[in-house]
Amino acid sequence: MADTGTASGHQTSILVNFATSPAEYKHWRLDIDGRVARLSLDVQEDQPFVPGYELKLNSYDLGVDIELYDAVQRLRFEHPKVGAVVVTSAKERVFCAGANIKMLGQSGHGFKVNFCKFTNETRNSMEDASAHSGQTYICAINGPAAGGGYELALACDHILLIDDGSSTVSLPELPLLAVLPGTGGLTRLVDKRGVRHDHADFLCTTSEGIRGSRAVEWRLVDQLSPHSTFDQAVSDKAAETAEKSDRPSSAQGIELTPLERRIDGDQVRYQNLKIDLDRELGVAYILVEGPTEAPPSDLTGIHAAGDKFWPLALARQLDDAILHLRLNESEAGTWVFRTRGDNSLVAAYDDILLEHAFIDDPSCWLVREITLYLKRTLKRLDVSSRSLVTLIEPGSCFTGTLLELALAADRCYMLDGNYEDGREDDQSFPDATVRLTGMNFGPLPMVNGITRLEGRFLGQPSAIEAIRAKTGADLDAQAALGLGLVTFIPDDIDWEDEVRLALEERASFSPDALTGMEASLRFGGPETMESKIFGRLSAWQNWIFQRPNASGEQGALQLYGTGAKTQFDKGRV
Amino acid sequence: MADTGTASGHQTSILVNFATSPAEYKHWRLDIDGRVARLSLDVQEDQPFVPGYELKLNSYDLGVDIELYDAVQRLRFEHPKVGAVVVTSAKERVFCAGANIKMLGQSGHGFKVNFCKFTNETRNSMEDASAHSGQTYICAINGPAAGGGYELALACDHILLIDDGSSTVSLPELPLLAVLPGTGGLTRLVDKRGVRHDHADFLCTTSEGIRGSRAVEWRLVDQLSPHSTFDQAVSDKAAETAEKSDRPSSAQGIELTPLERRIDGDQVRYQNLKIDLDRELGVAYILVEGPTEAPPSDLTGIHAAGDKFWPLALARQLDDAILHLRLNESEAGTWVFRTRGDNSLVAAYDDILLEHAFIDDPSCWLVREITLYLKRTLKRLDVSSRSLVTLIEPGSCFTGTLLELALAADRCYMLDGNYEDGREDDQSFPDATVRLTGMNFGPLPMVNGITRLEGRFLGQPSAIEAIRAKTGADLDAQAALGLGLVTFIPDDIDWEDEVRLALEERASFSPDALTGMEASLRFGGPETMESKIFGRLSAWQNWIFQRPNASGEQGALQLYGTGAKTQFDKGRV
Repeated sequence: MADTGTASGHQTSILVNFATSPAEYKHWRLDIDGRVARLSLDVQEDQPFVPGYELKLNSYDLGVDIELYDAVQRLRFEHPKVGAVVVTSAKERVFCAGANIKMLGQSGHGFKVNFCKFTNETRNSMEDASAHSGQTYICAINGPAAGGGYELALACDHILLIDDGSSTVSLPELPLLAVLPGTGGLTRLVDKRGVRHDHADFLCTTSEGIRGSRAVEWRLVDQLSPHSTFDQAVSDKAAETAEKSDRPSSAQGIELTPLERRIDGDQVRYQNLKIDLDRELGVAYILVEGPTEAPPSDLTGIHAAGDKFWPLALARQLDDAILHLRLNESEAGTWVFRTRGDNSLVAAYDDILLEHAFIDDPSCWLVREITLYLKRTLKRLDVSSRSLVTLIEPGSCFTGTLLELALAADRCYMLDGNYEDGREDDQSFPDATVRLTGMNFGPLPMVNGITRLEGRFLGQPSAIEAIRAKTGADLDAQAALGLGLVTFIPDDIDWEDEVRLALEERASFSPDALTGMEASLRFGGPETMESKIFGRLSAWQNWIFQRPNASGEQGALQLYGTGAKTQFDKGRV
Repeated sequence: MADTGTASGHQTSILVNFATSPAEYKHWRLDIDGRVARLSLDVQEDQPFVPGYELKLNSYDLGVDIELYDAVQRLRFEHPKVGAVVVTSAKERVFCAGANIKMLGQSGHGFKVNFCKFTNETRNSMEDASAHSGQTYICAINGPAAGGGYELALACDHILLIDDGSSTVSLPELPLLAVLPGTGGLTRLVDKRGVRHDHADFLCTTSEGIRGSRAVEWRLVDQLSPHSTFDQAVSDKAAETAEKSDRPSSAQGIELTPLERRIDGDQVRYQNLKIDLDRELGVAYILVEGPTEAPPSDLTGIHAAGDKFWPLALARQLDDAILHLRLNESEAGTWVFRTRGDNSLVAAYDDILLEHAFIDDPSCWLVREITLYLKRTLKRLDVSSRSLVTLIEPGSCFTGTLLELALAADRCYMLDGNYEDGREDDQSFPDATVRLTGMNFGPLPMVNGITRLEGRFLGQPSAIEAIRAKTGADLDAQAALGLGLVTFIPDDIDWEDEVRLALEERASFSPDALTGMEASLRFGGPETMESKIFGRLSAWQNWIFQRPNASGEQGALQLYGTGAKTQFDKGRV
C-alpha cells in the first residue's frame, strides 16, 4: 500500500490503481478532430487522489497524472489517425500550477519519489510519441505555467505561449519550496532546449517567472502569440504538424479494454502474468506466461486480435504489474522473474513484430506501437528501484523480448541440466534453454539509448558479435554462460540453496544502498536526457527531499502557505 | 571550520589544512628510482586526522588522502623524468582497507560528502596523469584491497593482484555499512573496466571479495602473479610503462615551495588571490590578481620562474582556496569572483602556455603540466557545491583563462560603462572589457569533456563560431552580452542594487536545493566517467548518507563493529 503520510506519523494507506478510461476522467478532456487531438486540463479541485488537499489552479496529483498517462496510451492505440496532440488548459487564465504542494507536503518520502518517477515516465512517453510514433505533442500555454505545469510544456515538441502581459512560464520550486523542479525540467532546459545555464539559473530562482519576448529569446518557449490570434496560431501549428505525420490517414484503432487483474491476498493475477508475494522474504515472484498459440500470420490478424495479441497483452500487464508493485508493495524489495512457455512461439511473435515494426508503411502503425510499448515497459523495469533477479528453469521461454528480462536483471541464475528428482509442478520439461532474436539487438534500448547487450559488454563489440552469431539457436546453460548471457548456472544439487541464499542475502541489505548501487551499475556507457533525468536529477531530488530544509517539520514543504518562513540550515554540503 | 561531529551532537571543529610535503608525510612513502616512482601506503594507526579512531589495516582518512594528493602533484612538477608510478602497500598482508569506518561514523553529513568529493578528485587526477601527463599509475595489490582500497586500484591504469590464495579485491560497503563505494568504484567497474553489471552486482554484495583467476576473468584486475614473482612482475610492468612515456629522460623539476597563506579573521590572503568573507550574507568574495609583468619569453624563463610563474602560482592558490572554502567555510554559500589586472598581460601568459603546451616535445612538459593543473582546478570549481557569481567591473582582467571564471559562474554581471561617481578604491579604470583567447576553446574542458563555451551553447555551434571570431578583441559589456558571454549588464545606477539583491536572494534559498539545481544546470550535454561520478554516483551516495538506514543512530555506519545488527526500514523508495 502506498505510504502517503508524512514523516511525522499522519499516514493514509490506499491502493493505487492505474486503470482508468476517458469516460472516467475527472481532470482531463480528450477531444479528437480529424488528425489533431486536444488534451485539455480541467482539474476538479475537490477530487484529490487522497483526502487532505484541494487541487487549486489546475495543480495535479497522482490521480491527474494517471489520467494523462492513460490518454497518451489510448491516443497511440485507439486513435491511429492522430498526428498532433495539443496539450492545453480548459480553464481561463491558468495553464497549470504543477504538482500540488500540499499533497507533496503530506506525502511520505517513498510516495513523493515514486510519484515523481511516474510523472517523469509519462512525460518521456510523450516525447517518445513525438519522436517515434508520429504523434507530436504541442503545448498551448494559455495562462501561467508554473513548476510541473511548465515541465509538462517542456515535454512537448513545440511550445506556444500566450502574450497577454501576464502569462509566464516559471519553475518556482527552489525559491518557494526548497526542492527541485522534479519532473525533468532542469535537464530539459539545458539539454533539450539549449537554454544557457545562467539563464536557467535566473529562471529557476525567480518565482514570478518569465513572459513575453524574453521567454522566446531565452529559448524557454518557441512561439509567442497575442490573445486575439492565439487559438488560430495553435490550430495552424497543429495542422501543419499533423500534416507531416507518418500516421495512416485512414485506419481503425484497437480498443484498450479494461485490464483483468485479480488481487487475492498475496497473489495478483493477470491473464498472462502472475505475481506471488513472499512478504516475509520481501520478494515478488513474477511469472510470465508465453503465448500458447502461433501468432496471426498477417497484419489483419494482429488487428483482429487487438489487445489480446500476446505481445500487447503482455506489455499492458507487465506495465501495470510494475506500477502496482512500485506503489503498493514497497517492501517487496526483490522482483524474481520466471517465464513458462515455448521458446519457438515467443520467437514467432518476435518475428512478426520485427517484420513489420520498422517498415515505412502507415499500415504498420499498430505493430510499431506494440514494439514501442514493449520498449517503454522494459525501460520502466530498468529504472525501478527494486533488485531484479531472473531464474531460468526447465519449461521457461526466455527468448528474444522475454530474454530482456534476464539481461535487465541484476543477477540471473540458469539451471544447468534438469531437476533430478520430481517436483510438485514438474511436468518433465526439457532442459532450460534461452534463445536470441532480433529484438535483443536494437528495438528495445534502455533509457541510456543502448541495448541491454551493449550495456552488458561495454567496449567489447566482439562479445556482442559472438552472441549475435547464435541468434535463433537454443542455448543451454553452459552455452549461455559461455556467451555471458547469465550470471550463474548451478545444477539441481545446488539450485535451490543457491537461489534461496541469494534472495535471503538480498533481503538482509539496506534497501537504500541497493537502490543507489543498482542505479549506478545498470546504466554504464552513454547518457541521454532520459537517463540523466532518472539518474542525476532524480538522485539529487531524492537527496533534497530527504533533507530537513525541505521535508523537516519546519521545512519549506511543510511551511508553505502557512505564512511562516523556513529557517534554513545554511551549511553547504 | 569542518563539522566532523556526528548528528547526535558530538562535534569537533578543526581547520583543515591541505599543505604538506614528503618530509612531513606520516602515511605514505614516495621513492623515486629513475623513471619509476613508488608510492607506498604505510598508515600510522595512531595518527588519525582528528581524534576518535585508529587507522587500522591501512585504512585512510582525510589526512592520508591529503598526503596522496600532494604526492601526485609533486610527481608531476618535481619529478619530470618519472614515467610510471607504482601504488602499493608497505605493510605485510594488507593493501588498503579503504576509508576508515569509525571516521565515517563519527563524521557529519557535510564532512562525509566533502571528504568523498576530495578523494574522488585525487583519483581523477591520477587518471589525468596517466592519460595526459605521461605518468601512468600502476597498482600493485600485495594484500587484501577492500572498499576504498580497491577503488584506489581502480583509479590506476593497470592492476596487478598477488595470487596468494587469500588476497582479494572487494567492495564491501553495501553489505557491511549500507552505503555505496563512494570513490567512483561502481562507475569505474562498469564504465572504465567494462565489468558486466551482474558480476559487479555480485562483487558489491559479497563482503569477502573475489580473488585469483575469477578476478581476472571478471576484468576486476588486469594481471595475477604469485608471491614469488610478484615484485618482479610489478617492476617489469613499471619499466615497460615508463619506457612508453613521453616525459623527458633528463630534466630538472621545479620545486613546489610552501604556499604563503595568511588567515586573518574574515580575510584569507595569498600572493595573487584574496578572500574576504561576509559571514552575515554567506558570501566569500574572491579577488584574483592578474600578472603585473610580462611573462618570460621562453621555456628557460618559465623554468627559472618555477612556482612563481603566474599561471602556476594562480592554479596553486585557487586550488587551495577552493578546498579551504569547501571544508572550512561551509556557510559561505556563494562565491563571488572578481579580478584585477591587465587584460593584455593575462593574454600574454595564455599565449605562452598555448604556444608550448600541446607540442610533442618533452622539453614542454612543464608548460603542459601547468595547463593541465589549470584545467583540474577549474574542474574543481565547477563541481563545488557553492553558487558561483562573477562580477566584471572596470579594472578587471577577465581574459582567456580568467574568463573561464565568468563562464563557470551560475550568474555573471558586467558593469555597462563605468562608475559615474568616485569610489573608495576608484583609480579611474577604463570601462570593463573581457577578452577571449585560445584557452577558451579547448584546453580547459569541464568534467563532462566539453568546454564551458560548448556547454553554454549546446547544439548551437554558430554561436560559438561567432564568439571565436572575436578572439583577441576587447569586448565591452554590450558586446559581451550580445555574444552571450555574460548574464546581465546593469549600468552604474543599478549595479550596486542589482548585485546586492542577487546575493541577498541567493542567501535566502535552501542550500541543498541550490546544490542540486547547480549540479543539474552546469553540466548539460555529454557525460564522462568523471561527470557520472560527480553527478550520478555522488548524488545517490549523498542520499544514502542522509538515510536513517545508514546514518541514523541505529544505522549501519553507527553500529558497525558493535556486534549489533541494523534493523533496516525495508521500504524501497
